[in-house]
Parts: sequence; C-alpha cells; structure tokens
Amino acid sequence: MIVVKHVHYTEVELEEPEEQGIKDVKVRWVISKKDGAENFAMRVFEIQPGGYTPLHQHDWEHEVFVLEGGGVTKDKQNEKPFKQGDVFFIPPMEWHQFCNTGNEMLKIICLIPYK
Amino acid sequence: MIVVKHVHYTEVELEEPEEQGIKDVKVRWVISKKDGAENFAMRVFEIQPGGYTPLHQHDWEHEVFVLEGGGVTKDKQNEKPFKQGDVFFIPPMEWHQFCNTGNEMLKIICLIPYK
Repeated sequence: MIVVKHVHYTEVELEEPEEQGIKDVKVRWVISKKDGAENFAMRVFEIQPGGYTPLHQHDWEHEVFVLEGGGVTKDKQNEKPFKQGDVFFIPPMEWHQFCNTGNEMLKIICLIPYK
Repeated sequence: MIVVKHVHYTEVELEEPEEQGIKDVKVRWVISKKDGAENFAMRVFEIQPGGYTPLHQHDWEHEVFVLEGGGVTKDKQNEKPFKQGDVFFIPPMEWHQFCNTGNEMLKIICLIPYK
C-alpha cells in the first residue's frame, strides 16, 4: 500500500553515485519509485567545494532548485554563476554541469521524470 | 525552441491561486508547460502565518520540499508538525492540508505531474 511519506531529507541515505566525470558528489533519493512515485523522482545532491557533477547530456529533463551554496553551471561553451534560490529547467539533450566554486557545501534539489 | 531556463525563484510572478478553502496563500509557477516542461511542474507556495492550503484530495500526487518555516499537515483525522527540510510524498487520493502555525512565512516547493 502506498502511504504518505514524511521525512527530513537528511534522514534519507546519502549515497555515492557511480558515475564517471564527477567529483565529491553525494546524493539522497528522497522520493523515488520505492515510495510509490511513478511519474518523477526527487533527489538532493550535496557537492563539496571544488566538486562537480558530470558535464553531460541525456534525453530527459532536469528541474533544479538550489537549496544552499552556489557555483557555476557549464555547457560546452559557456559558464554562468548561480546562487541559493535559483531554479533551472534543463530540457532534454542540453549539455549541463554544476560546479561548486564556493567555500561551503552546495546542495541542489534535482528532479527527473520516470519514463 | 525550448532552452535552459535559469532564474531566481523570486523573479517569477507571485500569483493568487483561485481556490476555495485557502487562506493567505500565494504561488509562483517556477517551472511549467510555458517553459517546455512536459512531465511535471514546480511551484513555490508562500503561506503567511495563520494561512493554509485547502484540505483536499485529488487523483495526482504531490512531491513537496519545505524551504522555509514550518507548521502542521492535516488529513481528515490527524495533524502532524513539520519543519524546514522536510519532504513529503503525498500519493493520489490522500487528503492533505498544509497550515502555517508559525510566526514566519512558510515556503514550500510542490511538484505535480502533467498527465
């Protein structure tokens, strides 16, 4: 039976993603198929100062909210600063990377569709 | 053409939802179909002290992250406190209500599927 899930995000296991091209990134899958979510998943990423997600592209979108910290986003040509409270919609096939260029932990909420 | 959207959430228009059973609630649709999001939408709700979302149910789920403030959630039987950093998965057809019982603004990110 699928029931309401209510937890503090820090209660969810902090995992090490197995992905190439990342540095000092950890992730909590705070809402996923395990909870009965059929349409999209919510993850919270924690990226240490100097760390980064991979510079990559894929055929699904990201919806991102920057919880804490800041840094720069990169595609293949440009980089652009971002800060706490910023929101990103990254359409399918757009190159993207999140880099923590600050001195504190960067935490972002990143949602992806299940399809 | 659908491009990357990058804004601070406070740059998105703050709207007054037209819904019965709410008090002192405003919403920003920070990522929606207008941006090319086809699978799910991200909204940020701002609920003043004493305000609340409707006690209601519907056939789609919510994925919620509590950005600032706190309060209590209610269904038809129970109420339960929540705080900043709490995450909710509310499955389809579950009764739910978010009430700001604190002294500061309550801000929640709430995502819904497009289907």
